[in-house]
Amino acid sequence: MRILGIDPGIARTGWAVVEGSNSKVKAIAYGCIETQASRDTSKRLAAIHKEVLSIIKKYSPETLAIEELFFNTNAKTAFVVGQARGVILLAGEQKLLPNFIYTPLQVKIAITGYGRAEKDQVGKMVKILLNLKEMPKLDDTSDALAVAITHAFSSKLLTKIQ
Amino acid sequence: MRILGIDPGIARTGWAVVEGSNSKVKAIAYGCIETQASRDTSKRLAAIHKEVLSIIKKYSPETLAIEELFFNTNAKTAFVVGQARGVILLAGEQKLLPNFIYTPLQVKIAITGYGRAEKDQVGKMVKILLNLKEMPKLDDTSDALAVAITHAFSSKLLTKIQ
Repeated sequence: MRILGIDPGIARTGWAVVEGSNSKVKAIAYGCIETQASRDTSKRLAAIHKEVLSIIKKYSPETLAIEELFFNTNAKTAFVVGQARGVILLAGEQKLLPNFIYTPLQVKIAITGYGRAEKDQVGKMVKILLNLKEMPKLDDTSDALAVAITHAFSSKLLTKIQ
Repeated sequence: MRILGIDPGIARTGWAVVEGSNSKVKAIAYGCIETQASRDTSKRLAAIHKEVLSIIKKYSPETLAIEELFFNTNAKTAFVVGQARGVILLAGEQKLLPNFIYTPLQVKIAITGYGRAEKDQVGKMVKILLNLKEMPKLDDTSDALAVAITHAFSSKLLTKIQ
């Protein structure tokens, strides 16, 4: 199963395409969509939307896994991240991808087995699980890989239960 | 100048097309896009996006005026409204409409002359200013009309100053 993992943000949206089969996960491609603060919000959102559509077209994922916002934040941040997630969910819907949302806690537990893991520990485990030569430079990319792996692991569990 | 005013929300997005010329404003069309809570968020966002595109196509507004969230709210609400605003800004951008954001305070002052006006007072003034037979049934529609009128008045001021 091929999964597109996304960590949404207006300045940086991390993305990762991960292939999950049996007990193995493999990174197909990953990166970060960056938009300049000097541009209008609507243009930044249009750039994110266009880029996500193009990633879906290029890598043909079957499903979309998104990291949920950590709600212990202020309303302004939540609003800005919400706008980015809106256009990402829209892109997934336009390409008919089912979407799954995971909280930061679910991602931490899936990746490290520990709910209070630090960002750096998540990054290190992502590197090990995917057998990457080095950790992604940006946390956003690392978080996108992590949420994609989380979905790969979760849907394996779902399959087992069924 | 023809203005599309929007009051964004996931359950209800109010919209209004208003024509502003000299000291007069006229309502061309208005209504409310409603989406069911039982549907997936991505499908609700896709419905809002599609409907806004279709309103722009039908009424050819030249500009988009959106009501800013009142930030004295919780992060979860801000996040949900943010998602809706994201796909609305995207629709405007895809149709090349310049967008303008007004705070609830700016709207209240523009419509009633009083920053602490109640929702009902704004609705009544909207009815008078547009010479409507009755107030719109939903606050969301009334708020969309109000933000469109606010932009009509503001851009008149801008023209005078220039």
